[in-house]
Amino acid sequence: MTTAAGVAFGPSITSGIESEIRREMDARAQQLAALGSAATHAWDLASRCVLGGKLVRPRLLVGAVDALGASRLSDGVDVSVRSGTEVGSQRNAGARERSVRIAAAVELLHFAFLLHDDVIDGDLMRRGRPNFIGLLLEEWDESGEVAGTATSRLRAARSTAMLVGDLLLSTAHRIVFREAAPGQTGQRLLEALDQAVLESVSGELTDVALSSGRIRPELAEVVEMSRQKTATYSFELPLRSAAILTGLEPEAEALLGQVGALLGLAYQLQDDLLSVFGHSDDHGKDPYSDLREGKETAIIALARRSAAWPLIEPHFGVGSLGAGEGAQMRSLLSDCGAEAEVRALVDELSANARELFATEADLLGPDMVLLLDDLIGALDGRRS
Amino acid sequence: MTTAAGVAFGPSITSGIESEIRREMDARAQQLAALGSAATHAWDLASRCVLGGKLVRPRLLVGAVDALGASRLSDGVDVSVRSGTEVGSQRNAGARERSVRIAAAVELLHFAFLLHDDVIDGDLMRRGRPNFIGLLLEEWDESGEVAGTATSRLRAARSTAMLVGDLLLSTAHRIVFREAAPGQTGQRLLEALDQAVLESVSGELTDVALSSGRIRPELAEVVEMSRQKTATYSFELPLRSAAILTGLEPEAEALLGQVGALLGLAYQLQDDLLSVFGHSDDHGKDPYSDLREGKETAIIALARRSAAWPLIEPHFGVGSLGAGEGAQMRSLLSDCGAEAEVRALVDELSANARELFATEADLLGPDMVLLLDDLIGALDGRRS
Repeated sequence: MTTAAGVAFGPSITSGIESEIRREMDARAQQLAALGSAATHAWDLASRCVLGGKLVRPRLLVGAVDALGASRLSDGVDVSVRSGTEVGSQRNAGARERSVRIAAAVELLHFAFLLHDDVIDGDLMRRGRPNFIGLLLEEWDESGEVAGTATSRLRAARSTAMLVGDLLLSTAHRIVFREAAPGQTGQRLLEALDQAVLESVSGELTDVALSSGRIRPELAEVVEMSRQKTATYSFELPLRSAAILTGLEPEAEALLGQVGALLGLAYQLQDDLLSVFGHSDDHGKDPYSDLREGKETAIIALARRSAAWPLIEPHFGVGSLGAGEGAQMRSLLSDCGAEAEVRALVDELSANARELFATEADLLGPDMVLLLDDLIGALDGRRS
Repeated sequence: MTTAAGVAFGPSITSGIESEIRREMDARAQQLAALGSAATHAWDLASRCVLGGKLVRPRLLVGAVDALGASRLSDGVDVSVRSGTEVGSQRNAGARERSVRIAAAVELLHFAFLLHDDVIDGDLMRRGRPNFIGLLLEEWDESGEVAGTATSRLRAARSTAMLVGDLLLSTAHRIVFREAAPGQTGQRLLEALDQAVLESVSGELTDVALSSGRIRPELAEVVEMSRQKTATYSFELPLRSAAILTGLEPEAEALLGQVGALLGLAYQLQDDLLSVFGHSDDHGKDPYSDLREGKETAIIALARRSAAWPLIEPHFGVGSLGAGEGAQMRSLLSDCGAEAEVRALVDELSANARELFATEADLLGPDMVLLLDDLIGALDGRRS
């Protein structure tokens, strides 16, 4: 899923999140070094990869905490601040720091899923650049560690990615647990994390079943898989966490969760559209990689229903797909109506999300409504 | 690592643990079913695999809780019981139930590591029977779900194993979090879990580096890898958890952790010995699989130092190794002294463990000393 580039989250948010991620990764690096582990090099590379990311999810979480916090102060929910004591603002500052730590955990969770996803897909690239596995292989080459065959080296790099992912997954859990203070709030944070992990794994498993042909790639299945695999942890988890951290009631948390699910799915569908129909100069991806890999997206599910499918099918999932055939498939996918239908679906999801939060604007406050509006705006103008 | 078959943990312990594991797995199965997930079938298979295991680690944990609990009641540490109130025994019953739940988490963690280990090693068998990946492939065959090539089916089965492992890893964390009551005890349980995950991942990463030739397979590296990869979570975690759950001081927890590390390593080294020199009728494993896979064990590290290595090396890690060559290698590994040296190492570890807990027998109580003696006794007479 690509970044919501249009959404203006301040640089201070980003640097705070980066510091926190660096702190967590460095702490693990020290533990691994103390164990004399062969893992330290791979872990350092993982740190650089995480910190080189766009940090969309943690920025969304902290941005939402700021927006919800500001609203709650100004509309007087936080009575202690209005009455002039400092308790409220202190509590708010505490929630802010906690939100940065939870946000770091969300990013580590995201990177763990990316690593495992790359192992599953057999990918060495992500967004036009070498991914963790590709970088690891490059570094082994450069350092002259060329023992083993190309196949065994690839297997070792994938195994390393899986294990680093395991430790990141565990670290993300550890952080959330540490921040989950005893009581209702902590319990709710843990439930949000658990739901995100459960749905991501479920979505990935459905994706594996789709890819291997054990599930028929109908539109409903593909869309639900996309929602589970990425929307839950990318949008629903940050927004629900922000609601919990700012002390909103469970109803408001559920509302933000629903908005997150709708927007997350809209972003994922638009990501699929950009991958096939966007300009590779903008998104930096191989323009036909989804087609070449035979990725079961909503676009493909719709194309399957169309009269054009017999023309598309022979080229779908063919690794050797050239630029000429790729361009031809792109035209077919557009002409058969699949592109327009997915665009309409993105618009519908955005409209549903907007309706949902607009009717509950009082609950969320003006700053949060503005943030969600920005997210939808960024979706519309998104090119990468 | 094979079971400590000689240690008599009662059937009531086992059935309690099984019920608890079933409850946790069923709860997840219901969540996955509610998501309409493609994962339900794989999850059911995972449940059957976990419950079909020997449950060595959870039985060790609950057995140790019982042994420590009994000692602590009888030697009067639990003052409230001596004074005739029921608070103590209630507290003890609570610790017992909690220990069964933590024990279930330890087994789920173990199975998650097994699944990821099988993905890394590319194995379809474990202990002479199809492992989860092998069973999944068999079930897909039987149900006629034969879409895709053999390669793509194998990849899908491995991806499924990785993802089921992820959800098990998360579930194990969740259980320990839930049981880790606020305060010092909860914090210590979480630290024990974290150390176990950290060391297991570190050990696996070192194993990957050894297998791919990026680390020289010296004895010290191989032994430390074995300790980290299996001893920590298999013996140290159950024993430390038992210490924490029965309210022992951190010093006693650390002592039991050290004893666990020594015994866990002894069991792992003996497992390596059995795999090469044992009777396959007893342990149910392919007698030459470790040699065929080129597994870097302490036996091999020692053989490398010997004059026999030039005779062994050409056959080591050769997939087509036949029974005749296998038997010849077995003789060479024995004659060169590697077998005897590893046996001596096992004895030394056992002796060190015994010395450690014998000098602190007062701290642990007679029942716990008996349990640890039994563990060492089982190690001596172990054939599978």
